[in-house]
Amino acid sequence: MAGSLTSRTLARPSFESAFEPPAFLAAMLAFEAALAESQAEEGLIPSAAAAAIVQTCASVTFDLESLVAEAKRNGTLVVPFVRTLRAAVAKANAEAAAHVHHGSTTQDVLDTAMVLCIRPCLEETDRTLDATVRMLAHHASQHRASPMLGRTLMQPAVAMSAGVKVARWAAALAADRERLAEAQGTALAVSWGGAIGTQQGLGERGIAARKRLARRLGLEDSLSWHVHRNAWIDLLHRAGMVVLTAGKIALDLSLLSQPEVAEMREAPPQEGVGGSSAMPHKRNAVGCMHALAAATRMPGLLSTLHAAALPEHERSLGRWQAELVVVPEIVAALGSSLDFLDIISASLVIDAGRMKENLNAYGAPGTTQPGDEATMDELLGELSPYLT
Amino acid sequence: MAGSLTSRTLARPSFESAFEPPAFLAAMLAFEAALAESQAEEGLIPSAAAAAIVQTCASVTFDLESLVAEAKRNGTLVVPFVRTLRAAVAKANAEAAAHVHHGSTTQDVLDTAMVLCIRPCLEETDRTLDATVRMLAHHASQHRASPMLGRTLMQPAVAMSAGVKVARWAAALAADRERLAEAQGTALAVSWGGAIGTQQGLGERGIAARKRLARRLGLEDSLSWHVHRNAWIDLLHRAGMVVLTAGKIALDLSLLSQPEVAEMREAPPQEGVGGSSAMPHKRNAVGCMHALAAATRMPGLLSTLHAAALPEHERSLGRWQAELVVVPEIVAALGSSLDFLDIISASLVIDAGRMKENLNAYGAPGTTQPGDEATMDELLGELSPYLT
Amino acid sequence: MAGSLTSRTLARPSFESAFEPPAFLAAMLAFEAALAESQAEEGLIPSAAAAAIVQTCASVTFDLESLVAEAKRNGTLVVPFVRTLRAAVAKANAEAAAHVHHGSTTQDVLDTAMVLCIRPCLEETDRTLDATVRMLAHHASQHRASPMLGRTLMQPAVAMSAGVKVARWAAALAADRERLAEAQGTALAVSWGGAIGTQQGLGERGIAARKRLARRLGLEDSLSWHVHRNAWIDLLHRAGMVVLTAGKIALDLSLLSQPEVAEMREAPPQEGVGGSSAMPHKRNAVGCMHALAAATRMPGLLSTLHAAALPEHERSLGRWQAELVVVPEIVAALGSSLDFLDIISASLVIDAGRMKENLNAYGAPGTTQPGDEATMDELLGELSPYLT
Amino acid sequence: MAGSLTSRTLARPSFESAFEPPAFLAAMLAFEAALAESQAEEGLIPSAAAAAIVQTCASVTFDLESLVAEAKRNGTLVVPFVRTLRAAVAKANAEAAAHVHHGSTTQDVLDTAMVLCIRPCLEETDRTLDATVRMLAHHASQHRASPMLGRTLMQPAVAMSAGVKVARWAAALAADRERLAEAQGTALAVSWGGAIGTQQGLGERGIAARKRLARRLGLEDSLSWHVHRNAWIDLLHRAGMVVLTAGKIALDLSLLSQPEVAEMREAPPQEGVGGSSAMPHKRNAVGCMHALAAATRMPGLLSTLHAAALPEHERSLGRWQAELVVVPEIVAALGSSLDFLDIISASLVIDAGRMKENLNAYGAPGTTQPGDEATMDELLGELSPYLT
Repeated sequence: MAGSLTSRTLARPSFESAFEPPAFLAAMLAFEAALAESQAEEGLIPSAAAAAIVQTCASVTFDLESLVAEAKRNGTLVVPFVRTLRAAVAKANAEAAAHVHHGSTTQDVLDTAMVLCIRPCLEETDRTLDATVRMLAHHASQHRASPMLGRTLMQPAVAMSAGVKVARWAAALAADRERLAEAQGTALAVSWGGAIGTQQGLGERGIAARKRLARRLGLEDSLSWHVHRNAWIDLLHRAGMVVLTAGKIALDLSLLSQPEVAEMREAPPQEGVGGSSAMPHKRNAVGCMHALAAATRMPGLLSTLHAAALPEHERSLGRWQAELVVVPEIVAALGSSLDFLDIISASLVIDAGRMKENLNAYGAPGTTQPGDEATMDELLGELSPYLT
Repeated sequence: MAGSLTSRTLARPSFESAFEPPAFLAAMLAFEAALAESQAEEGLIPSAAAAAIVQTCASVTFDLESLVAEAKRNGTLVVPFVRTLRAAVAKANAEAAAHVHHGSTTQDVLDTAMVLCIRPCLEETDRTLDATVRMLAHHASQHRASPMLGRTLMQPAVAMSAGVKVARWAAALAADRERLAEAQGTALAVSWGGAIGTQQGLGERGIAARKRLARRLGLEDSLSWHVHRNAWIDLLHRAGMVVLTAGKIALDLSLLSQPEVAEMREAPPQEGVGGSSAMPHKRNAVGCMHALAAATRMPGLLSTLHAAALPEHERSLGRWQAELVVVPEIVAALGSSLDFLDIISASLVIDAGRMKENLNAYGAPGTTQPGDEATMDELLGELSPYLT
Repeated sequence: MAGSLTSRTLARPSFESAFEPPAFLAAMLAFEAALAESQAEEGLIPSAAAAAIVQTCASVTFDLESLVAEAKRNGTLVVPFVRTLRAAVAKANAEAAAHVHHGSTTQDVLDTAMVLCIRPCLEETDRTLDATVRMLAHHASQHRASPMLGRTLMQPAVAMSAGVKVARWAAALAADRERLAEAQGTALAVSWGGAIGTQQGLGERGIAARKRLARRLGLEDSLSWHVHRNAWIDLLHRAGMVVLTAGKIALDLSLLSQPEVAEMREAPPQEGVGGSSAMPHKRNAVGCMHALAAATRMPGLLSTLHAAALPEHERSLGRWQAELVVVPEIVAALGSSLDFLDIISASLVIDAGRMKENLNAYGAPGTTQPGDEATMDELLGELSPYLT
Repeated sequence: MAGSLTSRTLARPSFESAFEPPAFLAAMLAFEAALAESQAEEGLIPSAAAAAIVQTCASVTFDLESLVAEAKRNGTLVVPFVRTLRAAVAKANAEAAAHVHHGSTTQDVLDTAMVLCIRPCLEETDRTLDATVRMLAHHASQHRASPMLGRTLMQPAVAMSAGVKVARWAAALAADRERLAEAQGTALAVSWGGAIGTQQGLGERGIAARKRLARRLGLEDSLSWHVHRNAWIDLLHRAGMVVLTAGKIALDLSLLSQPEVAEMREAPPQEGVGGSSAMPHKRNAVGCMHALAAATRMPGLLSTLHAAALPEHERSLGRWQAELVVVPEIVAALGSSLDFLDIISASLVIDAGRMKENLNAYGAPGTTQPGDEATMDELLGELSPYLT
């Protein structure tokens, strides 16, 4: 088992496995198979070769340790991957081997595989956000008339409705969800252009094959994005914004969960969760912890993504390769945030009585009536698609 | 004169002055004046008070040193700003003074002022990008048949057209321009909600006043964004992506300008520019330097923006305040990138002869024909709006 | 007045002015004067020339606007600076002009000037840390037997002494102070090596002149650090760690200042400080705000410093130039942190009664006795130099 | 196999396995065993219990999948780890089970385990740096009279010796090595203090046990560093500086390896390494790629470390937990840099003939003699310990 033990303890299993060898190799093979078929359809390689390649992609296996070691030595996973695949194809059809990976380069395979591997994670993100926003909107609606202390600069400000606070969380997540969906529309694109992104001189048929490849993989078509990657960066940044919003909610919740405040909390979905190794009486806010750890990491993770966006010429030596580590890490942090959202969807506790007590105790005289019905209405209007 | 001397030597004057006291105070006053008018129209404050406030906003002056010192002591610029404004209004109309800044908080004024100050910078960015893309598209079109070495991982790969390379730069900037315009559509929004973003109990008329305020300032209307700022962050991120694209172009250009390569270069628009303090014979690539320095800064600047996105409760103690420094810095880096784009728009030199020589000298046998007409056509198609 | 208005409202005046034109130009002139003298002493330039240069450095003035504009156009401040200085020297002694800036390059002047400008800031930092540690150690000693809730993962843990908490803050600052002093011992070094850091062929006498230059400026001698800057980065990083420690203290204090907790707080040194523009009844924790804003910025600022540490060849195009902005910003953030330390040195309030109440109310049964005398003794032992 | 496939292709196997479950669990067990022994020696737990714990630590096994799942659910690895260990101890000695992990908290075990796991990596770093500096110093000495173009701002400057360039690389690595060794002297420390770092009321004997624990593990003794972690951060930062220096060398080398320049290169230690998946004729600079990818990541990694340095109260909710991911990542990037250093130690090729040609072709008239003997002597003096 590879990967640091400690980082695994923060991971969302489905997001972790999305980039592990089985899933990632499957995505690489999906690329090679669909490429062969697409090129055959355009007459760029023989149909028989494509058939052999497709068949082999469904059955080939890799010796992982040697694959990784060779990848390291070569500075690219794709060299030993293609070598193995070619050898396997050759056993079925000697001639077909030469047509494996035709006109392709490392980044084509790896960028497309990244896209294929991130896609189900983003779909899961969308579903989780939908469910969380619904539940938060429901809470907001229920607590639209529960007064609580609004707090600014870590001090009491004026009264607000608990519903406003929760509705803002919901609206922020809903906006993140929309932005993320929008970015996927262009950024979940195929990468195929060969050495320098010009389809290796295959001309119009090369471009037609690329369009076919995109359709086969269910991805957007795109001009080469080996070195101009801002659509992709925009997508990952928007995933990062989900993590920041979840972090903000977790921060609020962790402050509200202090026993001196005790206005809201995540309730562990299960007996015995959140225990402390030193203090058996203690219940830790495990969900908040995951969300805050992810949010703490996100600025640095995105900054690496941005630093990697200075590639030289037609493909980079070292910059792009940093993405090979950081993209799965960004997704991992997103997964931790979803774990938090799952927990609060299932278990957010709002103590209206305590909120009222605190408001009376700490609110400035004459500031204990929220008076935010209009704001509440606006927010619930915004959230109406989630309130059905 | 404030600000570090060395940072000033990297600044684009129009972008620097956009956040300097005169412009920023003008934006704050524009907010207060428009707020008073909007509130008067909704009957929230007397019309006479609004008139006095508007009039005073047009004439009030500030003792900058004392304003800054008081802002520092109070932890907010708005306290001494409003105090001075109130005192000035009181001279004209004693009763009106109480209606200054009605229902507003620090962040309302400062966030709206930031938006107002960044707006002309983004307009200038849009014009500069338009001009640069046009010029690059023109170069691309002219050099569509000029073969050059494609380079990957810092080594010769296969032949490409110089036109493809330049068209990609252009297309990347054009896409950045579109993304930036799109983000402005939602993010250049008014901020007004009072202490905790709920219009201080002014109800429907408060919301109506906010919509009027937005229209008066030519900004989008928005629910309170004191602590849920992802639309704003998305906009600044997209500005940052322009800086990264400019940096990538500058990096390519700096590599191509090495005398051993000598295929392209920025030509200083003026005699004597780019001199060295140690070596009179030397011509430095001043534009590239500005773009690369800005791109070197951008990951860190954005990471601060992201780190600031974890505010507590209804307004933050310390997080948001980091934006007060970093937003002008992000804009400053963008300005340096535009300076670079201006230079290459005016002076990009492409040496087709030398490109051919290098291709012959360093290209692998049999790889000296680009064969990228189809890619070129696709790119020019994408750029067609700029090729008129 | 240049520099964004909002960033000025966060600045410590002495640290801000350290990098403003008067101070920075003075440092550049100090370099040029001391260089001339040192070179004359080694016979590298005529003594009369050195005398003329020294004299002119004491009187020359610059047209700032044109200096900045020329710096921008040339990509270096040093070209117009030296041109102006040479012209001024020429008026006094035509022959001497040729000996100005002899054997020097942009980075020599600017790096040395940076060092000269940061030095008084670090001295002020040392004094502030010393005073703060003393005051905190004194508080710790006084409250060694005041029980309070220890808190972990934002929940009550077990009892501790307030003295332990405060002594830890003090010990952390004391350790930062030592680390900072240690790094200054090597990093406050002269930079002089000419175009590529090899003393421009001046040989042994060049090296001897560099040593003299260092002594004259009160700096460490050093081999060229144009592109190998880790001693300098180490120093700035250690300055950054002071900011992080101050941020941690401010975070604790902001949590303890919540009225629901109310165990410690910064007391504004002056009536009327910390007011809110929306809520006159409110007292904001201005010091904490400054420290937290600085700490929020620090990871991004240091990451830019690290990103700049990949220079090409003998001097960088764009990387190093990013330091010209980020070093003054790092110092500015340090200044904000010192402002916070000054405030708590003057006004930290510890409410032992409330701490006891909270401990009784929220501590787990049987965990209300600190039992940390041994830890307290260890910490006070560590702090003994500050307890005299 | 866990961990993203792509990140594994960049990892140094010995550094990767250092934080994988077998090594990390072994370190955790080493902590628990040594803790039991140390506490028994101080009479804090019965000797028989300690013996049973030590014995069990040598033989206990964990169901990894369930350990990780429980760790995730509990927000800490230590809860299920201790539960399993206790159950195993109980089988041998029912009474001893209660003494497992006595007076300890999650951070005690995990921080100490991190230190134990990083230690061999730092030892390997030290050996690699020593070997690399020796080899580079040897090259420098051999090429002390080989003239080459010095280059600044990506353009030819004046002549220098190849020896100066290489000696600077060596001196920078040697200085990094010293700084790293120095930081280890204080930062490789035991962490043991219980829930809030005060030895859980065990008093003087608790402190004595901590000192014994440190000695047993071969670590430094230290006051609790749960929340004041700057010594540790300083160490990791210095590891990061090695990565930056290696990145700078790799950047230079990648520029010098361009065929148009062709002055130096890494020679693949083995036939067939560095192949391209698109272009069989191509040899990629695999070592440089690893070093540059690591250097691209480092600013973001360190910024996460710095962001994590704002813990609340006595132990943090979410900040510190970010270290659980980022510390192994920092070490992983360091490993990639060492792989590069290994490659250049074995295979750096310097082409003195080509350097001379380029100097003649591109050097300014009259600048083709290095004249840097004095600098060369200084550098070799600095490197003398490595030249034996």
